[in-house]
Order: sequence, then C-alpha cells, then structure tokens
Amino acid sequence: MAATELDPVLKAVDAGLDGALARLFDFLRIPSISTDPAHASACRSAADWVAGELEALGFTAVVHPTAGHPVVVARTDTGASRRVLFYGHYDVQPVDPLNLWETPPFEPRLGTTPDGRRTIVGRGACDDKGQVLTFLEALRAFRSTRGALPVDVTVLLEGEEECGSPNLPGFLAAHAGELSADLALVCDTGMWDQRTPSITSSLRGILHTELTIEGADRDLHSGLFGGAARNPIHVLATILADAHDADGRVTLPGFYDDVREPPAEVRARWQALGLTAEAFLKPVGLSVSAGESDRLVIEQIQSRPTFEVNGMFGGYTGAGTKTIIPARATAKISFRLVADQDPAKLRAGFETFVAARVPADCRAVFHWGEGARAFLVPPESPDLGHAAGALEAEWGVAPVTIGSGGSIPVVGQFKDRLGVDTLLIGFALDDDRVHSPNEKYDLTSFHKGTRSWVRILDALSHA
Amino acid sequence: MAATELDPVLKAVDAGLDGALARLFDFLRIPSISTDPAHASACRSAADWVAGELEALGFTAVVHPTAGHPVVVARTDTGASRRVLFYGHYDVQPVDPLNLWETPPFEPRLGTTPDGRRTIVGRGACDDKGQVLTFLEALRAFRSTRGALPVDVTVLLEGEEECGSPNLPGFLAAHAGELSADLALVCDTGMWDQRTPSITSSLRGILHTELTIEGADRDLHSGLFGGAARNPIHVLATILADAHDADGRVTLPGFYDDVREPPAEVRARWQALGLTAEAFLKPVGLSVSAGESDRLVIEQIQSRPTFEVNGMFGGYTGAGTKTIIPARATAKISFRLVADQDPAKLRAGFETFVAARVPADCRAVFHWGEGARAFLVPPESPDLGHAAGALEAEWGVAPVTIGSGGSIPVVGQFKDRLGVDTLLIGFALDDDRVHSPNEKYDLTSFHKGTRSWVRILDALSHA
Repeated sequence: MAATELDPVLKAVDAGLDGALARLFDFLRIPSISTDPAHASACRSAADWVAGELEALGFTAVVHPTAGHPVVVARTDTGASRRVLFYGHYDVQPVDPLNLWETPPFEPRLGTTPDGRRTIVGRGACDDKGQVLTFLEALRAFRSTRGALPVDVTVLLEGEEECGSPNLPGFLAAHAGELSADLALVCDTGMWDQRTPSITSSLRGILHTELTIEGADRDLHSGLFGGAARNPIHVLATILADAHDADGRVTLPGFYDDVREPPAEVRARWQALGLTAEAFLKPVGLSVSAGESDRLVIEQIQSRPTFEVNGMFGGYTGAGTKTIIPARATAKISFRLVADQDPAKLRAGFETFVAARVPADCRAVFHWGEGARAFLVPPESPDLGHAAGALEAEWGVAPVTIGSGGSIPVVGQFKDRLGVDTLLIGFALDDDRVHSPNEKYDLTSFHKGTRSWVRILDALSHA
Repeated sequence: MAATELDPVLKAVDAGLDGALARLFDFLRIPSISTDPAHASACRSAADWVAGELEALGFTAVVHPTAGHPVVVARTDTGASRRVLFYGHYDVQPVDPLNLWETPPFEPRLGTTPDGRRTIVGRGACDDKGQVLTFLEALRAFRSTRGALPVDVTVLLEGEEECGSPNLPGFLAAHAGELSADLALVCDTGMWDQRTPSITSSLRGILHTELTIEGADRDLHSGLFGGAARNPIHVLATILADAHDADGRVTLPGFYDDVREPPAEVRARWQALGLTAEAFLKPVGLSVSAGESDRLVIEQIQSRPTFEVNGMFGGYTGAGTKTIIPARATAKISFRLVADQDPAKLRAGFETFVAARVPADCRAVFHWGEGARAFLVPPESPDLGHAAGALEAEWGVAPVTIGSGGSIPVVGQFKDRLGVDTLLIGFALDDDRVHSPNEKYDLTSFHKGTRSWVRILDALSHA
C-alpha cells in the first residue's frame, strides 16, 4: 500500500489519541499484581477488561482459566493471507516501596520529565499495559477507517509474566493448533534511544542450576575442627573462582565450542555504535568491564555466553558471628547461551568441571532447570526487513537491529511448540523505571508506537 | 600433704555421692536457658540456688545484677597462702528439638549407656552444671572433714556463657580487684578419653571479620548486564579461593610470621598419640584433611592458625531462580590465632590481600571484631605440674596436656584484665551430647571429677 493509502489510518491514530489514553488509564487502574494472591480478582478483571476491548474490535475473545491467572486468546478470522500472533501480558509488578511513589501507582496521570517530555505515570504504564495498547490501538485505527485489519491477528495475553509464567508452557502445548501463525510479535522491549527505534532479533538462551557442595554431616565447631575439616564454602569458592580466567573467559571445557562469530557487517555496525564499557556501566555505578578482554562490550552482553552466580549462601548468615565450618554451601548459577550452544552439553561440561574440584570426602549436588537455547531471527528474514522499513518510515531513522542479552522463554516456546519466529519491537525507554516506583511511558512512545504498528502491520500484509 | 592425710576427704566424697547427686538434680531442674527471655526468672533462680549452696559452704556470696543475667561471685577469706578463681556458668543451651529427648530435659534421671556406664541425663548435666558441682562438692568434702579449704577460693559463675557472655568483660573490668587470684580454674572441658584425664593448657585466639564486596549500585539484570558487569560473588569467591594454596597453607602475607614450632617433646607426644586425619574426621562424615599437608592433624587443629569462612551470602537465596548480578556479597570470616600472632597484624595483612583483588570499580568493606590472642600456660608452669600429678593420682594415668583449637574468651580476659593464668580441667566425654538432646554426664565423671578437684586443690595448696 502506498504511504498515502495509509494516511487515513495514521490520522485516525492521531485523532484518537485522547480516547486511547482514556482506555489506557482504565487499564492502568486495575491493580493486576500477579505475584500477590490478594490481587487475583484484579488480575481476572484485567483479563476481562482486555478481552472486552478485543471483542469491541471485532475479535472472538476467550478468557481461559489456568491453575494461576487466566490467559486471554482473541482472534480474527477474515481469511487474510497472513496471520500474526501478538503476545503481551496484562499483569504488573508489585508496587513496594509504596512511599517512593509520587502519586498512587494505580491512579494513572500525565506527567512531564525534567527535560520536557510528556509521560503517562503509573504501574504498568510501560510494562506491559501501555505497550500492549500501542498494538490494540493500531488495530482500532484500521477498524475505524477500513472496517478490516490488513492481516489476521491472534492476540495472546497472559497474566503471569511478572511471576515466571508458570502456566504458559502448558497452555501453549494444549492450544498449539489454535495459536498457529506466520509470525509472532512481542511488544515488551525498548527503543535504542529516544529517537531511534529498535528490533530485538536475537535473545540469549538460559540454563539454571543450583549447586550444593556437601561436606561434613553437620555444622562443625571451627575451633575444634578448623584447620583439618574441609569447608564447603572454600570448595565452592574455588569452583566459582576457577570458572573464569584473568581475561574474563569462561574456563569450562568446551564452553565456546558452539559459539559463532558475528558476520563482519554486524560487527562493523556494533563497532560504529561506539559503546564503551565505561559508558555502558556508568549508570549502575561501575566502570570496568568484567567480560572477555578482547571483545566489545556489546558482544559481551549480546553474542557471548556467560557463567554467572546469581546467589550464594552457606553457613551462618545472621547477625554477629558463629564459629562454624558449615556442612554445605550453595550457589545459584545461570548460563546465558548464544548461537548453537546446547544446554545439555553445557550441563555435562560443568558437571565435569565441578567433579574435578570436589575433594574425595565431599559431594556436589546439582539441581538443573530445563534450559532454553538462544533464539535468532535470521538477518535475511523478509519480515525483519518489512518491519525495519516500517519503523524507519515512522521515526525517520533506521532501527537498530540488536540482539538482547536477556532471555524471553516465550519466544523460544513459540519457536519450539508453534514453529514460529518472533520479532520483538517495543517503545520503552531506559528511564521508564520499569519494576520501580513512578513507572512511566512517554506519550511519544505511546503515540508513535501505535503509528509504528499501523505501518508494520501494513508492511507485513504485503509479504 | 601425704596421700593418707587426704583419704578422709576422698572418703567424704565417696560417702556423700548420693547427696551430691540430689543437689545436682535440684540444680538441673531449673530451666536456666539464657538465650530465651522467657527463662529469665529461671536464670535468676539458678543464680540464687548456687549462691545459696556457696553460702552453705561458708562463702560470702553476692548475686550481681547485670544488663542480662546475674553474675554470682562468692569468696572465702581465711588468709590461706594461695587463692584460686574458679569460673563456670549456670546457664544452659536451649532444648529444641524437644521431641528428640527420651525424657523431659529438666527432669533429670539416672541412665545407662549401651556399654553399661551409668549416666546423669538432662540439660546441663555436663555443660556446665555437672562440671561446676564437681568443684563445689570437692569444697564440701574439705569443709565436712576439716572445716576449712586448703586454699582461698573465689567462685565466679555467669549466666550468659551460652549466649556469648555479652556482659562478662564489663563485669570483669569493674570487679578486677575483687577477682584477683593466683590461678584461675575452669571446669568446662573434656577428658582425652574415658580413662585418660586431660588439661587444656592452650587455646587458639580468634579474630572475626565480615567482608562485603560492593559492585553495582543495585542488583542488575543478568541478561542485560551479564558478561560485562562485575559480579561481587565472583570477586569474593576469588578472594576466598586465593586465601589457601593447594597444600592447605594460608597465603595471606605474613600469616605464619609469629607462629612458633612446638618443642620437640610436645611434637613427639603428639606423634605418639597416633591420631590420623581419617580417624579424627570419620565421626563427622569426612576423611581427608583440608589442612597443611605437611602437618599432623593435631597440629592443624591446635597449634596452627586458620582462615575459615563461617558463612557467606549474596544475591538471590530464596526458592527457584532470579537472574540477577547482585550488588554485593558478604563473607563472615574468622581466624584462629596461635602463639604470638597479633590480631592487628593479621587484620592489616588480610586488608592488603583483599585490596589487591578488588577491581577498580568495586569496594571492600570490613567489619572487624575485637580479636583475642592465643593463650598458653607455659609448659614449665609449676601449677600445671601440680594439677597433672593430682590427676594422675586419681585416674592412674598421666593426663594428656593438650592445646585446644577452640577459643574461650574468658581465659584471655583473665590474663589481660586480672593478670592470671588459667588451667582448664574438665571431665566431659565425647559422647555427652552437649548442646544436643539427651545430654548426659557419666556418673564416673561426676564422682571422680569431684575426687580430682580434692587432689588438685590440695596439690595447689602446697605450691
């Protein structure tokens, strides 16, 4: 469709902004904190609310109960040549500490940043209610101007994203047929900066384990046994210390075997971004990269695998002192996987590495999670190109196509269970205070995000 | 005094055993659990009870209130040529888990071990009420046969030993003059084995610190920052791993500078004991020594200093997983000091060691405890010889004079504040289940322990 043919739809977005904001405020007033059982009925209300909105847009919407909070599935069936599956979530993070909020978290309001940007303030304004509505409002603009959408759409909204999506994998397995689509779209990520849109086209995989080193059959008196009895904290510390060398490389056997080097043009693009470790780390109070010393920081956080200790505990951890040699010590460890790394192979490599460092009278006990491989939209994917073109048309700047260092399991599940690739496109900004008090979403993100989806859906319909 | 002159006193002990047991049972019925505020009045009752017993033995006894539980001080002033200061405690450990007790912990009873030894069962039977009464019953035997004690005695009994003696150092400082003596005696330690008595003539010192490594100014998302941001758990693990070499030696600079080699005859005695690491560690489920590979296990636990991590925590320690790089990680560390090691020097050495391993954008924060030097009764001390002779006369076997790897701060405080050396002589056995359900004290420990004190007090009076 020529740009001019899309103009009425975009104009409908512009003209309808006040109505869209009113709807977002209604959505934001529902305190759908999924992790708190006291808010279960609010989660149900949020599911019902969004299902009602989808029905009003001509969708057939069903609120599916689960063992936790409901899953909303809504679809159009117009026989369009293509179908997209849109995923988002209607639940939000808890709001504590409440005293740090300038206004009540579930009384949304418009605000202004110190540098003059207008914002929508409230829990969920960005994550993910505001981002979900950018997509729904784009659909509304098509309906109101043309009476039809350019593609068929399945909307999948869950209510447990903020508490680990425990019921989603089972739901996807049980409803795989109903959810089949040509492409999945997720609006839960951010812009590169205030002016530059971004498409997240790769995600690192993830693998968790909890490693416990067991020594004596009880905590020992460190006066009576200290000097002779093995201390499991010492054993665990040695394992963790040995896992990286002085150059920041992970030393586990075979760890880098299935890691691929990025294509030269990708690396050139990264280099051109000019992101230094100091600039990247400064906002969190750090300055020196801990990663592989011969890699760009953007590689370290996107295309390179990691070994990270997320938590560790052993022995006495209360106030004051207790002179014991503990019976055991535990580390919660996660790996970020890239490219072709296989969770099963990493698991075997780490177990071998640990076994070589456990004294004869101690034991290593592992509790492994399932693990998820890395995910990558092939750079030559036509849909990636369509979406990129649409975003450039809206923002006047080519989007940065980046990998994310994070792991979004639903994307891997879409690939594994539904056989569908995902484009992650979102309009969050770094200063949105997601998960924190005074969460906000820029009015520009909301408005131009909606316009972006109009252009993207149009572009995808021509694929 | 010739052995025959002591016979009436020893006979009085034998004849009075039933009465002594009845008194011990009265003492054991008082649930003086010092750590539990609900038992404060029981602690007061125990202090009153023992002060009453001492008054009945001709002492002037005072129950001194403190910010916690009272301190009992009782003394005789007969103008004897020597004065001993006897220290013990009237408080006991908590009794949970209560369901593992065969009979109620504060209803003392006589029992029998599987190998036929008669025992006194109840909380405090050994630690320390039974041991304290061995000394008091020895005094009673002197009083009943001679009307006088062979030495003047000051008895100091505290009620907070099981909760860290928070008020004792201040009490000692405030009452130093009143507590002056020629020698201190403590009955809170054990026999070498069922037949062999023991004198603990050295204790390791102790130094505590809590070390926190601080990295980013908040917990970071390990997907977004993993690979670039420094993980304080990794930094701390490296510090802890580096603190020992592969041979079990502590690598801190200057750590062994002020450690002394034991005299050849002490080492010969140790070697003759034939204690293997496997035999020493087997009861706690271990088999391989973690200590310096060129040292006897008895050296490792007594005459060598240690670096031990008593507890460690950082990041997420709840159930399941949380993909963070924590902002900080903490280790609770203690050193056991020997010989001339100076807490201040160790402190400086460790701070230097840590500083060399903290990246430029992280910080190391220490919280140091006060520290206590090691304590040693000189092997040539005449009182040590007197006590050893007395014990050999009672048991028919020369006592093993050993160092203890533990640290009993009161002994250091006696040395520092009162200028007095301490002999630690006790009759506990390894199977007494001190601090555990079904605590017991062998009837033989109680009876021959009392007889031992008769002989020791007599021997000390001739010094």
